[in-house]
Amino acid sequence: MVFTAEEAEKGAADGQEVILVRTETSPEDIHGMHAARGILTARGGMTSHAAVVARGMGRPCVSGAGSLQIDIAAGDMVTGGVTVKRGDILTIDGATGQVFLGAVKMRQPELTGDFAILMGWADAVRRLKVRANADTEADATTARKFGAEGIGLCRTEHMFFDADRILVVREMILAEEKPAREAALAKLLPMQRGDFAKLFRVMAGLQVNIRLLDPPLHEFLPHKEEEIAEVAKAAGTSPAKLRARAIALHEANPMLGHRGCRLGVTYPEIYEMQARAIFEAALAVAQDGVALAPVEIMIPLVGFKSELDLLKGRIVAVAEDVARMHGKCPDYRIGKMVELPRAALFADQIAASAEFFSFGTNDLTQTTLGVSRDDAAPFLTEYVNKGLIARDPFVTIDPDGVGAMIKIAVERGRKTRPDIKLGICGEHGGDPDSIRFCHDSRLDYVSFSPFRVPVARLAAAQAALRK
Amino acid sequence: MVFTAEEAEKGAADGQEVILVRTETSPEDIHGMHAARGILTARGGMTSHAAVVARGMGRPCVSGAGSLQIDIAAGDMVTGGVTVKRGDILTIDGATGQVFLGAVKMRQPELTGDFAILMGWADAVRRLKVRANADTEADATTARKFGAEGIGLCRTEHMFFDADRILVVREMILAEEKPAREAALAKLLPMQRGDFAKLFRVMAGLQVNIRLLDPPLHEFLPHKEEEIAEVAKAAGTSPAKLRARAIALHEANPMLGHRGCRLGVTYPEIYEMQARAIFEAALAVAQDGVALAPVEIMIPLVGFKSELDLLKGRIVAVAEDVARMHGKCPDYRIGKMVELPRAALFADQIAASAEFFSFGTNDLTQTTLGVSRDDAAPFLTEYVNKGLIARDPFVTIDPDGVGAMIKIAVERGRKTRPDIKLGICGEHGGDPDSIRFCHDSRLDYVSFSPFRVPVARLAAAQAALRK
Repeated sequence: MVFTAEEAEKGAADGQEVILVRTETSPEDIHGMHAARGILTARGGMTSHAAVVARGMGRPCVSGAGSLQIDIAAGDMVTGGVTVKRGDILTIDGATGQVFLGAVKMRQPELTGDFAILMGWADAVRRLKVRANADTEADATTARKFGAEGIGLCRTEHMFFDADRILVVREMILAEEKPAREAALAKLLPMQRGDFAKLFRVMAGLQVNIRLLDPPLHEFLPHKEEEIAEVAKAAGTSPAKLRARAIALHEANPMLGHRGCRLGVTYPEIYEMQARAIFEAALAVAQDGVALAPVEIMIPLVGFKSELDLLKGRIVAVAEDVARMHGKCPDYRIGKMVELPRAALFADQIAASAEFFSFGTNDLTQTTLGVSRDDAAPFLTEYVNKGLIARDPFVTIDPDGVGAMIKIAVERGRKTRPDIKLGICGEHGGDPDSIRFCHDSRLDYVSFSPFRVPVARLAAAQAALRK
Repeated sequence: MVFTAEEAEKGAADGQEVILVRTETSPEDIHGMHAARGILTARGGMTSHAAVVARGMGRPCVSGAGSLQIDIAAGDMVTGGVTVKRGDILTIDGATGQVFLGAVKMRQPELTGDFAILMGWADAVRRLKVRANADTEADATTARKFGAEGIGLCRTEHMFFDADRILVVREMILAEEKPAREAALAKLLPMQRGDFAKLFRVMAGLQVNIRLLDPPLHEFLPHKEEEIAEVAKAAGTSPAKLRARAIALHEANPMLGHRGCRLGVTYPEIYEMQARAIFEAALAVAQDGVALAPVEIMIPLVGFKSELDLLKGRIVAVAEDVARMHGKCPDYRIGKMVELPRAALFADQIAASAEFFSFGTNDLTQTTLGVSRDDAAPFLTEYVNKGLIARDPFVTIDPDGVGAMIKIAVERGRKTRPDIKLGICGEHGGDPDSIRFCHDSRLDYVSFSPFRVPVARLAAAQAALRK
C-alpha cells in the first residue's frame, strides 16, 4: 500500500506490486495509477476519475470506500478500528468492492464459455472492426487471444529502446555523415526484420499496421551528466561530442518539433531501412507458408501532400529493389496517420496518395486543443472541477473540436478515395463513448491496448444497436 | 561586418551596429538578422530568403552581390582585389544595392510629400484597416506616425519585464496563497494603469486592443543557478524555494501548456487586476478630455466557450465595481484571440460571447501545422530547399492549412454575429501575400510591427484593386 503516485512509481520501478490508496485521484496521479496494480479511494463512485481511468487501464479499482481515514503524513489509514500502515499488504476486488487485509490467494481470469457467447453476440452485430496496438510478440499474442482483428499501430521506435539496440540507435544519431549513419542502420536492419517477422507470424492472416519512426531523435540520447559519460564510453565517442549533439537536438516544444515524417524527409535512409525490414520480414514469413494480409506502412505526422509523396516514392523504390533482389515483394499499402489539423483539412488532396488514414487522436487532441498532455494536469483538473469541460479530452474524444476535425477528414478523404480505410489508433479507441463516436463517423476500425479489446467489441456492438 | 548569426547577436548585445554578411541566409540565421542593422549576401535576389525576411524586418539588405568571395574560417571577404576583414566597417544601400567600404554619413528618412500622396491614393481604395502591434508609448507613436489606425495587439506581458517590475511579478508567481498573490498584484496595478494611460493618450480616438497575460509563468522565473541565487535574495525567499517553483512550473511543451486564458482560469485575480488597470487608465485619460474609442480586451488561447464565458463574467464584474467606485466605467469590448484549431471550428458558438476575433496567425500556424517555430529551422529549410513547401509558413500564411482554418472561423463567427470584428495580429499581417489573403477573406483589419504599416497600406490597396 502506498499513498502517492510517486511512491507507486518508485515501488513499481523497484519491482514491487503496489496498490495506490488516495482520498480521490486526479490527472496528476495518472503516472502512479499506471504504475499501480490496483487503486483504492475513499471518495468517488462508478464514474469518478479513479474508476473511469482504472477501467480504461484494466486496473482493478475500489472507489468511494467512505470509511477510510487516510493520513498521508502519518503514513497510515484507519477503518473500523484497524490501522494499516504504508507498505502493508492489501488485496482489493474491483468487481465486488471488497478490501482485504493481507494477500488473498488469487486465480487468473479465464475466458469462459459465457464470455465467448457474449462476445459472439457482440461480434454478430457490430460494424466497427477492433484492432490492438502492439509492438511485441507478447502484446500481439494477448491481442489475438482477446479477439483483436489486426494490429492498428505498431510503434517501431519501441523496438529501438532494448538494451542491445539503443547503443546502435545512438551510433546512428551521433553519425555526422550519411555513410556512418547507414552503417549503423545496416546493423539495425536485421533486428527490425526479426521483430516484424515475429509480429507477422502471430498475426497471420490479419492486418498489421506499422508506423515508421516517430519520436524526435533526442528521446534516444541521455541528458544527465553521469549517463552521458557512460553512453559516450559505450558508443566510442567523447562526452563532449555526445553532449553537443544532445544540445543541438534539444527542442523547445518537442511535440511540435523534428519528428514523424520530418525525420523521414531529413534522414530518408532511416525510413528506407524500416521499409526494407518490413518487406524482407514479410517475404521470409510468407516463404514459411504463413498467409499474410497486405502490410500497412504508416507515415506519421504528415501535414503536406508533398511529404507523403516524397516518402511514398522512397518506399516504393525500396519495394522495387526488394523485388529485384528476392524475385518478389510482398503486397503492401501506404497510408498516413492524422495527428495535425492541416492533414484533416487537406484530407481530400492527401487521400490521392494515402490508401488509409489512421487518426492519432492523442496528438490530434494536443494540436487541435493546443494542450500538451504532459503539461495539462495543473489546469485540466481545475477545468473539470469548475465544469468548464465535461470530460478529460484525453480520455473521451472531444466531440466538438477533435471530433469535428475527424469528421472533416473522413468526409474529404472519402470524396477523393471512396474506399479509403479509416481507423483510429490511440487510447480513445478503447473508450466506449469514443467508440460510439467512431461508429457514428463511419470509421472502419478502432485500435488501442490489447486488454481493452473485449470491452471495445461490446461497445462497438452497443453503438451499432443504438441506431 | 560579421559572418555568422551568432556574431551578429553578440555584437548587438555588446551595443555594436553590425552588418551580417553571408553567402546566403537560411531560417537558422533569423536571430542574427534580427540583431543586425543590415544584411549582405553573395547569392540570391529580390525574392531570396535574405531579401524577403529583411524587408519584413525593415532591415536594409543587399542580396546577390555575386563577386563577393567570403571565407568565414579566414574571417575575410574579397571583392575586386579588396580584402575586408571581420570587424571592418561597411555601409550598404538596400535601395540601390551599393556596398561601401567605411562609414558613409547618413540621413534619417523622412516621410516626404510624394510618400503622403502615394499613401493617400492607397488609403482611398483599400478596404482593410491597418493597425500596429505596440506595447509602449514609443511604439505607439511610431505606429501613428506611419498611419496606423489603431493598436491591434498590446502584449501586456511586455510591461512585466521591466527591471523594476519583474521583481514584483516574481513575487506574485512565488506567492503560495491567494492573499500574497493579491498583494503583489496590488503593486502591479498602478504600473499597468500608468502604461495603459500612456498608450491611450497616444492613440486618442483610435481603437486599442489589449491582450491579457499570455505566456506561461515560468518565462518570468530565472533558470540558471547564479540567477536563481540573485533573484531569491532580491525576492526575499530562499534559492531552494525559488528553484522548486521553477521546476514545478517547467513544461515539456510550453507552447501547449499552462498559458493564455488557462492562467486566467486558474489565477483569475491576474486578469482581474489587468482589467481594472485598463478601466481605470481609460477613465483617467478620459477625465483629461481625451476622446477614447471603446477599448478592446482580448482573451488569449481560448479553446472552449466556457473559458470565455467564465472570464468575461469576471471582467464584467470588475467593470461594475469600477463603475461603483468611480461613478462610471469606460466603454469596452471583450473578444478573443484565435490561435487554436478548436476555436476556429467552434467559432459559431464562441462568437455568441466574443465581440471580436483576432487571429494569432503565428500560434495558429504552430497548432494547425504542428510545427514549433523555435524548432522548425532544422527541417523547414530543407522543406523549402527540396520544394516540399513553396514558402515559409511563418512568413506567408499557409493558404490551404491555416488559411482554411481562418476561413472556417470567419464564416462560422459571422453566422452567429454578423457584425463581429475580425482582424489578424501577427507578423503575417504585414506580408503582402498574406494581406491579399486577409482582404479576400473579408477580415476588417491587419496588425503587425509599426515599421511595416506603410507597406501594408499599399498592399491592402493592391489587394482591393486586384478584384
